[in-house]
Amino acid sequence: MRITILILLAAALQSDRVPRSSRPELYGGEDPFKSIDRESWLAESPNAFAVRDRNPQAPVHILVISKASVPTLLHPSEALLGEMLGLVKQVAEREGIAADGFRTVINTHPDGGQSVYHLHIHVLGARQMKWPPG
Amino acid sequence: MRITILILLAAALQSDRVPRSSRPELYGGEDPFKSIDRESWLAESPNAFAVRDRNPQAPVHILVISKASVPTLLHPSEALLGEMLGLVKQVAEREGIAADGFRTVINTHPDGGQSVYHLHIHVLGARQMKWPPG
Repeated sequence: MRITILILLAAALQSDRVPRSSRPELYGGEDPFKSIDRESWLAESPNAFAVRDRNPQAPVHILVISKASVPTLLHPSEALLGEMLGLVKQVAEREGIAADGFRTVINTHPDGGQSVYHLHIHVLGARQMKWPPG
Repeated sequence: MRITILILLAAALQSDRVPRSSRPELYGGEDPFKSIDRESWLAESPNAFAVRDRNPQAPVHILVISKASVPTLLHPSEALLGEMLGLVKQVAEREGIAADGFRTVINTHPDGGQSVYHLHIHVLGARQMKWPPG
């Protein structure tokens, strides 16, 4: 009886650590970011790098990707997220879209339009972005 | 001659401190976020708060806003940006859109669609978001 309670308690604590919203059943797919050649990196920070999107939706369309394979926005530390937005800013300046403007987009899970389960931030500019954002 | 060089050097250092991309000429407008009643806050962190967007573009459309009046994504520390994305995550969980998914959007300057010059992050969910993101 005591052992059963302990097991149930352990299971509850475990499920609390991995919230239902992380949805690990969605992560099984290919990770195309793992095969990106380092030579195509436009910029990097200690824990992230930037490359051009292969299916650009604007004249400038960059992805800022975590070096570690973090599945979604729901998983990483605030420190990594801040660092990645810092790299977004740096890349926007370098690409010459910071002054006229740009849109920063993060898709999470199916309703958000996330297709690759490896955290990445879209940076789109060099055209007028419209509203709503998709 | 020496004084001229010193003045030019000082001017160059000054303009380096305020990059051209910050575009302070754009910040003069009204700040509707300053008059938001604290009672309408859905959640808060030490330096940010969350409210519903008045012109929702999805069944759930939240804004995460910096408490201090920071004009754009190009200005704040990485720590504040990380904290704000942490609040995005928290709000998405609370609003019940984290598991199905949501889109996170930051507009910077005119091409990005920024209208209010007070840093805010859009969180849209409870419908299928489309591509491209505007």
